[in-house]
Amino acid sequence: MNIVGIISEYNPFHNGHLHQITEIKKLFKNNIKVICLLSSDFVQRGEPALLDKYARAQMAISNGADMVLEYPTLFCCASAESYADNAVYILNNIGIIDYISYGFKSSDNDNVKKISSLLAYESNEYKEILKAELSKGLSFPKARQHALIKLLNKSDTDIYKLSETLKSSNDILAIEYEKALIRQKSDILTVPIERTGSDYNDPYMKENFSSATAIRKYLLSEKVINNKDLADNLPPSTLKILEDYSEVKHFGSMYLFENLIFYSVISKSNDELKKYPLVNEGIENLLKNNVFSCSSVNDFINTCVNKRYPATRIQRLLIHILLGMNKGITYKYKRPGYIRVLACRNKSLLSLISSKSSLPVITSLKKSYDDFDSDLKTLIEFENKACDIYNIVCLKDKSQYLNEFSVKPMFD
Amino acid sequence: MNIVGIISEYNPFHNGHLHQITEIKKLFKNNIKVICLLSSDFVQRGEPALLDKYARAQMAISNGADMVLEYPTLFCCASAESYADNAVYILNNIGIIDYISYGFKSSDNDNVKKISSLLAYESNEYKEILKAELSKGLSFPKARQHALIKLLNKSDTDIYKLSETLKSSNDILAIEYEKALIRQKSDILTVPIERTGSDYNDPYMKENFSSATAIRKYLLSEKVINNKDLADNLPPSTLKILEDYSEVKHFGSMYLFENLIFYSVISKSNDELKKYPLVNEGIENLLKNNVFSCSSVNDFINTCVNKRYPATRIQRLLIHILLGMNKGITYKYKRPGYIRVLACRNKSLLSLISSKSSLPVITSLKKSYDDFDSDLKTLIEFENKACDIYNIVCLKDKSQYLNEFSVKPMFD
Repeated sequence: MNIVGIISEYNPFHNGHLHQITEIKKLFKNNIKVICLLSSDFVQRGEPALLDKYARAQMAISNGADMVLEYPTLFCCASAESYADNAVYILNNIGIIDYISYGFKSSDNDNVKKISSLLAYESNEYKEILKAELSKGLSFPKARQHALIKLLNKSDTDIYKLSETLKSSNDILAIEYEKALIRQKSDILTVPIERTGSDYNDPYMKENFSSATAIRKYLLSEKVINNKDLADNLPPSTLKILEDYSEVKHFGSMYLFENLIFYSVISKSNDELKKYPLVNEGIENLLKNNVFSCSSVNDFINTCVNKRYPATRIQRLLIHILLGMNKGITYKYKRPGYIRVLACRNKSLLSLISSKSSLPVITSLKKSYDDFDSDLKTLIEFENKACDIYNIVCLKDKSQYLNEFSVKPMFD
Repeated sequence: MNIVGIISEYNPFHNGHLHQITEIKKLFKNNIKVICLLSSDFVQRGEPALLDKYARAQMAISNGADMVLEYPTLFCCASAESYADNAVYILNNIGIIDYISYGFKSSDNDNVKKISSLLAYESNEYKEILKAELSKGLSFPKARQHALIKLLNKSDTDIYKLSETLKSSNDILAIEYEKALIRQKSDILTVPIERTGSDYNDPYMKENFSSATAIRKYLLSEKVINNKDLADNLPPSTLKILEDYSEVKHFGSMYLFENLIFYSVISKSNDELKKYPLVNEGIENLLKNNVFSCSSVNDFINTCVNKRYPATRIQRLLIHILLGMNKGITYKYKRPGYIRVLACRNKSLLSLISSKSSLPVITSLKKSYDDFDSDLKTLIEFENKACDIYNIVCLKDKSQYLNEFSVKPMFD
């Protein structure tokens, strides 16, 4: 029996995600269990998830996952590098993962391996080229892209394919997963599955394999779930969950959190803003000046963008401010301290993970919280606060709120 | 030439307010100037004003006021006692006020005088009775009411009338004004004007003299301005201002600020909540527990109410938390440090106040800010922040935002 881990957001779960799980099962002739590590209510790029973590966990279980673990907000709402690094750390430390499967887009997965081993232990030559590129005022991802092309240009690498790899959001994550596995000296092997259809940032709806970005955009603007466009792109179980969910909660979006985001910037002094991880080089002045001249939160983000600060960085920084994710907590807690099971349909898998994991495994949050030391308590309190903020805004009837301690994982 | 001060909210300016100004002018045979001290964007009872301070200042000027001064949020959003005390302090210190006019409701204004002189210098007997009443678990206003009735019962006071006086919101403020004048040893005399129509908390619309509470309720639910009910209760200029204003901003209400209020409680730890002035005796636990079981902010306030914490106190406390009005700033700044002119239609009055006031008079906020010391700068920064929070939520198009420094007072 093999166990495959998937690092996921399922925001929402679509045909592309189903394709990945189906392909893995085919590859291992069904002799496999799938464990998904799922981002919590605020996701990597720094925005509220479309649906809460429980609804997305249910989507995964309905489509072939055997277990879903929570990737806490404090760690998943971070740069691609840090996101991948801590995700690999968790999958490494639960002690039962044989493979990590990721989607990739470029026609040549060799590039992913080549780049990741180069980045895992940065050579002096690479560091120097990178430094020179950064000094031109480029953003870190851009500078890294240029440095890698310059470096690999000397080898027999196909530079066109290399550029494509470095431009694809999926492949950037793939590189980060491979890199993290090398750095953490992990025994876990990887199972790259080629993506069908759109890259995950593609904003346009396609016939069958639209990106999650396109599907979110569609859902947030159309607000109709029962239609052909969505039915062609989402498994039936996802559609059903979306329908039920939309009775109870608004879909999460930056727009829905707009006033809160503006408020959380306005209500803080420049000195208070500087307590947040990505706020430096005078970006706090930019935030305070621009917050008042913008008609929307997207407008706000765009006016703050410059070469050094791409939109995703600004957006993530705003979510950090919203959630109180300041330097105090992020610098103190570099690694996740526990694993919480959000859903599981296999009791033996639950016993296995509980016996093998080097991190404490949570099935009853309240019970674990009471047993934990103050550091782990702090981590749980932060996660609960983030989810509370998410829920109080998304709930259509606030009195329907459920305390995180009261939500039980789904055990089929 | 006499100068009369009116401590006001004009939330919004209605026929009752016009009646007061008209009566004063009659009384002084028009040989008079009227200066209104107007609450800023968050008012005494702890809620966002229906319209911003500039629109309400314009209403006052359109209806006979000669000058409108700002009563800063930090001081006006406070208990009736503190509200009256600092308002009298300002009017006392601008050095040109001969009279303060207030509305009263009870048929016997003598009671107001009698009670206020009793409260200005509390006798030991009074203190003991009050203490006994408080120990029964009564709220402060209730305990005070009981103590005063017990004390004055011994004299020849008409106890029925006394109870009526102590029950009327208007008369409670009247008592506080008189008390503050005594305590501050002020030479200012008072001009009580009997209120026509409703007491100011009366929630129902009347034919001509509805309360501001009833008018706000009507405007917030009906959202139609051009109708007979309102036309019967508001001067035509108020109607016009309401119409123009509603094109640009939403009317302020607790409902409009609901998510922000919930967020500002949820995002703070119990220890952070305890940094706020009225948060003690475990009320922080009550807030944190109840915020999650309520369908609305009004529901939230009501679930937190107990004998010791009436709704107004809870509501004010929530606004303090929303605005970051913590013990740090409220304990440090006990008195307003400047006077800002919001509107004026009389240049000689402006010269007079500038020459006589013992507090610096602001006509250009930016200029004064640059000249001020760090304490006064802090006060202005706090006021600006409160208005920014108000405006960013109320503005229909956030890009229409105007920095407080850019808003010029209206000089006709």
